Amino acid sequence: MLIRRLAVIGVGLIGGSLARALRAAGEVGEIIGCGRGRDNLVRALQLGVVDHFTQDIGEAVSGADMIFLAVPLGAMESTFRAMRGHLAEGVVITDGGSAKASVVEACRSGLGTLPARFVPGHPIAGTEKSGVEASFEALYVGRRVILTPTDQTASDALERVTSMWRSCGAEVALMSISHHDEVLAATSHLPHMLAFGLVDTLARMEENDEIFRYAAGGFRDFTRIASSNPVMWRDICVANSQALGKVMARYSEEMRVLAETIQREDGDTLLEIFSRAKAARDRYIDTLSGPDSSE
Amino acid sequence: MLIRRLAVIGVGLIGGSLARALRAAGEVGEIIGCGRGRDNLVRALQLGVVDHFTQDIGEAVSGADMIFLAVPLGAMESTFRAMRGHLAEGVVITDGGSAKASVVEACRSGLGTLPARFVPGHPIAGTEKSGVEASFEALYVGRRVILTPTDQTASDALERVTSMWRSCGAEVALMSISHHDEVLAATSHLPHMLAFGLVDTLARMEENDEIFRYAAGGFRDFTRIASSNPVMWRDICVANSQALGKVMARYSEEMRVLAETIQREDGDTLLEIFSRAKAARDRYIDTLSGPDSSE
Repeated sequence: MLIRRLAVIGVGLIGGSLARALRAAGEVGEIIGCGRGRDNLVRALQLGVVDHFTQDIGEAVSGADMIFLAVPLGAMESTFRAMRGHLAEGVVITDGGSAKASVVEACRSGLGTLPARFVPGHPIAGTEKSGVEASFEALYVGRRVILTPTDQTASDALERVTSMWRSCGAEVALMSISHHDEVLAATSHLPHMLAFGLVDTLARMEENDEIFRYAAGGFRDFTRIASSNPVMWRDICVANSQALGKVMARYSEEMRVLAETIQREDGDTLLEIFSRAKAARDRYIDTLSGPDSSE
Repeated sequence: MLIRRLAVIGVGLIGGSLARALRAAGEVGEIIGCGRGRDNLVRALQLGVVDHFTQDIGEAVSGADMIFLAVPLGAMESTFRAMRGHLAEGVVITDGGSAKASVVEACRSGLGTLPARFVPGHPIAGTEKSGVEASFEALYVGRRVILTPTDQTASDALERVTSMWRSCGAEVALMSISHHDEVLAATSHLPHMLAFGLVDTLARMEENDEIFRYAAGGFRDFTRIASSNPVMWRDICVANSQALGKVMARYSEEMRVLAETIQREDGDTLLEIFSRAKAARDRYIDTLSGPDSSE
């Protein structure tokens, strides 16, 4: 058994699914849940996702040999702070935050140090739903989990977290913190900004009722992600402002140039841009057909 | 029977599906196909989509009482020009072009006049595929067709085209030319520009292999439309440059502001933008669940 006592801080889709998968794999003894919403914790207990729960973070992590943090990025620092003085020797801490530099900073500032057994991580998985009700055992099967060890991370801690995710059926990849944040800014955070920006632009146009009425089917899929949780996305943007700001600046400049090219009816340049995009998209479609993922 | 002799100029997905639907409805006597690709016309004949074919536009329209143009926007003017002197009295002309002001201009310039029996139209339907092989009888069932009569359009011609589309199962809506072009710029052309621009931005980044490898499932759907035909999209952009250029300018400004807001980590403004977008998207999701459509 990999884990004797697991503390899950934030028992939602991500944390709940990890608990279910480890239980199903027979790799965990006892699971303690912790979080801000008491009703959700009661439900987690009823569903058998956790064995006990508490709303006291210090109590939750006491005696745990593995801690998984699945709280919003904006709550990471206070969560680390609440763990101070309650950590057992040798406990491994990992998380599921979607921007890594900010979580590392939250850890350093909240705990007052960057522990050797902290392994920052990011499971590339998720659905539209949230809360423990949405969690399920197979969420991570065939999905990628990116681990971004710090220069303090001990190799045995990295190995334990790797084994944990593999026992859930995930593929584990290692990446530097900054590279993770750049890759996710480009492939996940940027597309969300496009969708939010598109819907907001249209909503601010006159006669937007008519516009939305004639929106095509593809438009609906395209803007589906604009229904994502605004608070979560504010946190992601602030947490990953450096990498996302950079790629957003490039993209907005590309859009400015494209708008001008359309306005001056420069067909040759338009054909060049569209052909290059189509070639890139077609070339990478095979790469994309690897492990399925979302968020 | 609504139509004695139908000439379909451009027997692809759009033209072929109209021919099939009218045949199935028993509303057409004879169907003549015309187009630039001879192999496609031979296939259309083999499939029974057309009864005859010719590559001579003048010959195709001679004796027709209904003409449907489904050629690329860039080919509209030369197609109208080739029809000069071959039109039977009382013939109704309509089309399927996705930007209407440019088709009206192509008609005026190609024919030398704007005939009373020209009814510009746009079926909001399509799939990823093209060519007569991709055409099918039910393409227009439950879809919207927008007709944009000019100030010259005779009411009996408008009625005939309306009846034609209704017999294919479509819902017909009337709109002014400029309003059509604005609505389509916002709901179809703009989303395509976003997708082309996103893929092009990423393809131009260093290590774009890695970036595409980690692209999430949602990203794949999001950029699917960037695989659309670059020539067709160049034509649409040039044809609808005025309306599309305007909405693109607004969007690129929105993206510039959003990039700056992220860079200065202004969480309050971000939350405001995301919340407004989510509210608009959620409010209109019911409207969107009307007739399904694409392109």
